[in-house]
Amino acid sequence: MQTVAFLGLGAIGAPMARRIAAAGFTLRVWNRTHERAAAFAKTGATIAPSAADAVRDADVVVTCLSTSADVEQVLDDGVLEALRAGMVLVDCTSGDPVTSRRLAGRLAAWDVGFVDAPVSGGVKGAEEGTLTVMCGGDEQHIERARPVIEAFGKKIVHCGPVGAGDAVKAMNQALLALTIWGTGEALVALAKSGVSPETALEVLNASSGRSNASMNLFPERVLTRAFPRTFRLSLLAKDARIAADITRAERVPSPLTQLAAELCTMAARELGDEADHVEAVKVIERWAGTEIR
Amino acid sequence: MQTVAFLGLGAIGAPMARRIAAAGFTLRVWNRTHERAAAFAKTGATIAPSAADAVRDADVVVTCLSTSADVEQVLDDGVLEALRAGMVLVDCTSGDPVTSRRLAGRLAAWDVGFVDAPVSGGVKGAEEGTLTVMCGGDEQHIERARPVIEAFGKKIVHCGPVGAGDAVKAMNQALLALTIWGTGEALVALAKSGVSPETALEVLNASSGRSNASMNLFPERVLTRAFPRTFRLSLLAKDARIAADITRAERVPSPLTQLAAELCTMAARELGDEADHVEAVKVIERWAGTEIR
Amino acid sequence: MQTVAFLGLGAIGAPMARRIAAAGFTLRVWNRTHERAAAFAKTGATIAPSAADAVRDADVVVTCLSTSADVEQVLDDGVLEALRAGMVLVDCTSGDPVTSRRLAGRLAAWDVGFVDAPVSGGVKGAEEGTLTVMCGGDEQHIERARPVIEAFGKKIVHCGPVGAGDAVKAMNQALLALTIWGTGEALVALAKSGVSPETALEVLNASSGRSNASMNLFPERVLTRAFPRTFRLSLLAKDARIAADITRAERVPSPLTQLAAELCTMAARELGDEADHVEAVKVIERWAGTEIR
Amino acid sequence: MQTVAFLGLGAIGAPMARRIAAAGFTLRVWNRTHERAAAFAKTGATIAPSAADAVRDADVVVTCLSTSADVEQVLDDGVLEALRAGMVLVDCTSGDPVTSRRLAGRLAAWDVGFVDAPVSGGVKGAEEGTLTVMCGGDEQHIERARPVIEAFGKKIVHCGPVGAGDAVKAMNQALLALTIWGTGEALVALAKSGVSPETALEVLNASSGRSNASMNLFPERVLTRAFPRTFRLSLLAKDARIAADITRAERVPSPLTQLAAELCTMAARELGDEADHVEAVKVIERWAGTEIR
Repeated sequence: MQTVAFLGLGAIGAPMARRIAAAGFTLRVWNRTHERAAAFAKTGATIAPSAADAVRDADVVVTCLSTSADVEQVLDDGVLEALRAGMVLVDCTSGDPVTSRRLAGRLAAWDVGFVDAPVSGGVKGAEEGTLTVMCGGDEQHIERARPVIEAFGKKIVHCGPVGAGDAVKAMNQALLALTIWGTGEALVALAKSGVSPETALEVLNASSGRSNASMNLFPERVLTRAFPRTFRLSLLAKDARIAADITRAERVPSPLTQLAAELCTMAARELGDEADHVEAVKVIERWAGTEIR
Repeated sequence: MQTVAFLGLGAIGAPMARRIAAAGFTLRVWNRTHERAAAFAKTGATIAPSAADAVRDADVVVTCLSTSADVEQVLDDGVLEALRAGMVLVDCTSGDPVTSRRLAGRLAAWDVGFVDAPVSGGVKGAEEGTLTVMCGGDEQHIERARPVIEAFGKKIVHCGPVGAGDAVKAMNQALLALTIWGTGEALVALAKSGVSPETALEVLNASSGRSNASMNLFPERVLTRAFPRTFRLSLLAKDARIAADITRAERVPSPLTQLAAELCTMAARELGDEADHVEAVKVIERWAGTEIR
Repeated sequence: MQTVAFLGLGAIGAPMARRIAAAGFTLRVWNRTHERAAAFAKTGATIAPSAADAVRDADVVVTCLSTSADVEQVLDDGVLEALRAGMVLVDCTSGDPVTSRRLAGRLAAWDVGFVDAPVSGGVKGAEEGTLTVMCGGDEQHIERARPVIEAFGKKIVHCGPVGAGDAVKAMNQALLALTIWGTGEALVALAKSGVSPETALEVLNASSGRSNASMNLFPERVLTRAFPRTFRLSLLAKDARIAADITRAERVPSPLTQLAAELCTMAARELGDEADHVEAVKVIERWAGTEIR
Repeated sequence: MQTVAFLGLGAIGAPMARRIAAAGFTLRVWNRTHERAAAFAKTGATIAPSAADAVRDADVVVTCLSTSADVEQVLDDGVLEALRAGMVLVDCTSGDPVTSRRLAGRLAAWDVGFVDAPVSGGVKGAEEGTLTVMCGGDEQHIERARPVIEAFGKKIVHCGPVGAGDAVKAMNQALLALTIWGTGEALVALAKSGVSPETALEVLNASSGRSNASMNLFPERVLTRAFPRTFRLSLLAKDARIAADITRAERVPSPLTQLAAELCTMAARELGDEADHVEAVKVIERWAGTEIR
């Protein structure tokens, strides 16, 4: 079995790493704040004192951090020198293609493979090993890492060259932002018009304007006022900005993607760093003076 | 059985009227251009020489026109005087709440009921009698017309007072516009990034940004380049403008809904009056210099 | 000299009325809250106990209220019956063309003229009688009221039929909103880039992107952090929404005007009812975490 | 007198270079297409066969190209090796700060100074030597180049470190785009409402929504239908995209700047590469079906 180093044990990363341990790989974990790593002692994983120690002699390195800049920072903090030829770094961060391409170039100089491999499916998907994994990179690097990726991913899609995984993930997030915000505008306006949100969703979800947001997020999280904190709004805003940068760099006039990025950024500032992404609708509610309930 | 007058035999209206005839109602039809009405001779329906003649002595009048202004025009062209107390007018036009409320008020003075009852489900839903019907108005008026509505509708939802059906329909259409346009921006940018649309949709549709547009419209109509003409873009633009007027009138800050309305209006001008609503993506493609294929 | 009734003694209305009194007209004033009317005792004006009393036997009625709906309310509260044939109502409210046209129609039935005549120039312009007055209506009605209008206006422009004055005023306000907000985005971003606002404005105001906002409002009100409260943001938001409704009704795709209206509406909710229109930049500053200073 | 190399003899660059020659500097010019360089023979300038030949032994190098990427390309095509310690490169391109900072870093390694120095004032300003020059870089580099800059610039402003000149220029351009497009939406809607553009501008330019666009560009270029081609729309779109990238990178929620960039990009695609920036209003006119005249 391969030896796997896992860097970044956040809300998604921790259950992914646990799946890797459960699949029988030799696992070495590291996290910036030590407590989250310490919790892995009982899985049989080695708790590495530094990221560089974690990656030394690993076959596959998995990173799952907040941003591509964080990944580059970790590389610059000693990891790069600890890598050896033949390794593959699978970056599950929701990253940006420009940085990923630069990282891939830097790693290629050491004969280390790079696969951007952001995931979709949330905490539940990570725990159950049913994540969708969108991969960018060389076929051979993906194949070498595939057994590890299969420990946490169910649908593993090779999207294109390095950066393609990031690009697809970013576009998904921008569409998530658009549908959350758009459905929020609609339901708040309907509530003010005297249409109950339950009725509105019943109709929308039997009609052409439906989306994952209207079919799942609003019934489960907004109408219940539960707003569970599963994915931070500030990260959705970051992802939407990556999407907006991609559409602009590709010269695709993209007023909606741009506006979605701006609205998420505003909402993240309004609601603070702990807010969940679905709480963005609270900003619309506040501006409108009406709650969706 | 009730006698039904049906005014407006367009792409959706014609199959709806056929369902009413098939359900055994005595049907009288009228259409502004006579040919479309003449085609009903074989259904056993009476072809009325004027809208006023169609409605005289009917129990239920169904209108299915392009805009609320068209409905008001028909009323002013002799229909109003031909109505009698106790009738119900079921307006299946995708109308606007302000006009619908004014029409309801005018009809109430003649003791005629008004139900705004826009539908969703397309030509196929109309032919199969599986439309979703979103009703606004008094419970008693809806009940009186319910047997007729059931001839073409499967999911019949009472959304609220007069105008509520229009409001819900308009919001659905704005969300349809948002998801078509947003998915279009995403797929064009991904295509330029080297990600094939099939791959992109495979991932999106297994992820959180999915919508009816990404799950059905893009695979069936865009990737195939079929772009069947089932619902005109200019009508979607009109609906999105109604949605945008509602959110503004309700004082809901709604930048996305407003922008969706503007983009559809632009696209409708770019592509001309015959363009289907999904062809809006062709405008993004033209601006970006790349096709989704 | 004509007898003038003046309804609405707000921040702009009061000095306008004072100019009319000073010009020698017989003046009768009314205000919803009595104190503001009582302050006119020393000008020689008659303080009317009701709006209806104020207008009775006047030659020209001037209204200067917050919205066209307020004007219609006052008419419905007894003023309409107190008007007599031959009078002219000069409405200096920043109104909306749709309501103005309806009011003109209702007044025409009594043979009373209507001129929409919103003003520009602020409190200072009102005090000095140098307002710009944008008139919509019949030439003859404007001519009959001209001596009164000249008491407070310097540039008096006949823009077109009833509603044209409102339309021009609304468009000016939308452009004011656009330039305040756009200049705010620019200066906040430049401040974060290390360019001082003084330097940025020095260059902008010698370049092609300059506007009244950059040339006057920012140097006098923002860089000084004075933010004097001369015109409420909530009224600018209302005006911008009127502009956005006009462009939509005229079928002019107008993404910028629509967005300006939404942003002002958001900002007015964020900052509360007392905020000045220039304080809108504080919302950008708050979202960006940096002040323009 | 210093020896000056001038690279890029476009619409603005050519008259700037002519001013430098007229001020007595020893001038060597180069242009990608030779004809534009050949025209300089009569000024006494040396026509260099390559950019590298032009810069060799110069004291100050001035670049005036379309984009920062073009400047980097020229450096990579042999110019970098031809530079010598102590030189200053004054880049009058409307560039982007990210590339400018990279270029400055590359040149610093050779002990060559870099000043980003985009200009404002158009062809006329270049011919008359009255350009506004917004400089980013070290004080000492600016001082060394100041005599050359003074040959074509009247207002020379040190905005901040390298990139600051680009940033201020980009923001000016975004505001120019916003005011052209916003004024266009307003005048088209007013024209459809029956208000003549002359009347509308007369009022706007005496009111708070006025800008350089409404005061100068519309009267001189739009109402006359002259639309002289002085500055390409595609370049304005590029500049507005730079501005939008800066506001995003600085985390300033900036919906208007983003939208301005998208609209210009759309319009540039609609109108083709030769269109002047003010012709953007023709897109609004086309979409609205009405001309401003």
